[in-house]
Amino acid sequence: MSAALERFSINQMTVKQLDLPELVDACLESGVPGVGLWRAPVQSYGVEATAKLIRDAGLSVTTLCRGGFLTAIEPAERARALDDNRLAVDEAATLGTDTLVLVSGGLPAGSKDLHGARERIADALGELGPYAASRGVRLAVEPLHPMYASDRCVVSTLAQALDIAERFPAEQVGVTVDTYHIWWDDTAPAQIARAGASGRIHTFQLADWTTPLPEGVLNGRGQIGDGAIDMREWKGYVEAAGYSGPIEVELFNDALWARDGREVLAETAARFAEHVG
Amino acid sequence: MSAALERFSINQMTVKQLDLPELVDACLESGVPGVGLWRAPVQSYGVEATAKLIRDAGLSVTTLCRGGFLTAIEPAERARALDDNRLAVDEAATLGTDTLVLVSGGLPAGSKDLHGARERIADALGELGPYAASRGVRLAVEPLHPMYASDRCVVSTLAQALDIAERFPAEQVGVTVDTYHIWWDDTAPAQIARAGASGRIHTFQLADWTTPLPEGVLNGRGQIGDGAIDMREWKGYVEAAGYSGPIEVELFNDALWARDGREVLAETAARFAEHVG
Repeated sequence: MSAALERFSINQMTVKQLDLPELVDACLESGVPGVGLWRAPVQSYGVEATAKLIRDAGLSVTTLCRGGFLTAIEPAERARALDDNRLAVDEAATLGTDTLVLVSGGLPAGSKDLHGARERIADALGELGPYAASRGVRLAVEPLHPMYASDRCVVSTLAQALDIAERFPAEQVGVTVDTYHIWWDDTAPAQIARAGASGRIHTFQLADWTTPLPEGVLNGRGQIGDGAIDMREWKGYVEAAGYSGPIEVELFNDALWARDGREVLAETAARFAEHVG
Repeated sequence: MSAALERFSINQMTVKQLDLPELVDACLESGVPGVGLWRAPVQSYGVEATAKLIRDAGLSVTTLCRGGFLTAIEPAERARALDDNRLAVDEAATLGTDTLVLVSGGLPAGSKDLHGARERIADALGELGPYAASRGVRLAVEPLHPMYASDRCVVSTLAQALDIAERFPAEQVGVTVDTYHIWWDDTAPAQIARAGASGRIHTFQLADWTTPLPEGVLNGRGQIGDGAIDMREWKGYVEAAGYSGPIEVELFNDALWARDGREVLAETAARFAEHVG
């Protein structure tokens, strides 16, 4: 493995056209040491089977994506969400990763109460945090870009994520730092320092910002180097804050998904080496 | 005119299918007392002619949209932008409005330097602010939603807009408060108070937040009441900060543009009365 790829991890969604054995083969072929996994393809292959596949290949699982969706008001729906998040913690533990990424959830239908939704997330973490820590798993609250605030994640900034996370011990709850979601925010570097000071940078993810955004704005995460974000600048911020862990590239991008997955993985590794490593 | 519409102003873009005489007629028909104008249709009808048309109808011009696009690095391009903004100031003065809305501009091609772009905006305002004040026009820096940070406006939050505006006297430079751009930001209410304290809320505009966002994310501004934003809550923030001026509804929305403009204006006035007035 080249030194430039030492900290590189490929998030499974970047090359979702590859099944798990293909992903593992492609990682070995491209010298990629780590993978961030997603629950649905892992469940479909089998959690234990995935764990064995990755372990036997000598790869590490850097995160499991994703728990969360904790903003429901209705009690039965809320209980189901908590159950599902406990299951996600169990899956993370089985896979051998210490980090479960949380996408907090949007506004319930008809609600305009962002503050209330954020408080329900904090309430849920009060239940899930101790459970996760008991399994050796840390929850990483991910602020999503403000364009997702209504329908996907009411936590829009690192400051908001830390306001919630700091109510709990760092070994229970920290944050996800993802360049795509925070690159526009001139207060984010100071918030990264704040997160690092209490040991709460649980994962660092990269995607570039490219425009025009596609309809629905979900699958426009740009290949590293194609957009407006200076990756080394943000790597510098997390490193100055004490983070020296894996760096995941997580792209949702229809154009990349339409191509050969091995080729996309090799390209992504090369871009990482050029712009980050 | 009903009391519920006393502060209502229709931004011309909301019903861009109407030409200026049609817009004026529709305003009189629906009891709408104010209009926010855009430069292109005004230039096309004639600036003096527009001023006379609006004045003779007894309507007021609440803003002119828009100046800005001040982030160019190349000297000739920068000089052209300054010239064009001085012309926009002149047009505002001729139209009888005291407020020119500024959309600051995105990153120059190939640049990843948000901070530098923001500083070039401040430099430009140092030239434009005194000129505007000499014509009785105030510049209203508009923070645009962070999803426009790369290609349209590097000023993404009220805090950033005020950090720039406060370098100048309030009668030269203030801000635009637009619900669509800031509704997700839990620090925005405090920034509205900050803006009000120095008399810098130069205009207050409304659009609702609806999803899914369309491709390019420009024309998805939702009709009042259709989305996630509590309009009375935000009206309360600007009023508590001392703002008692006009409230403009500015929608860019393909579905509304495809309908009869008079009907859209009447609907918008009714929504304003229901959700704001």
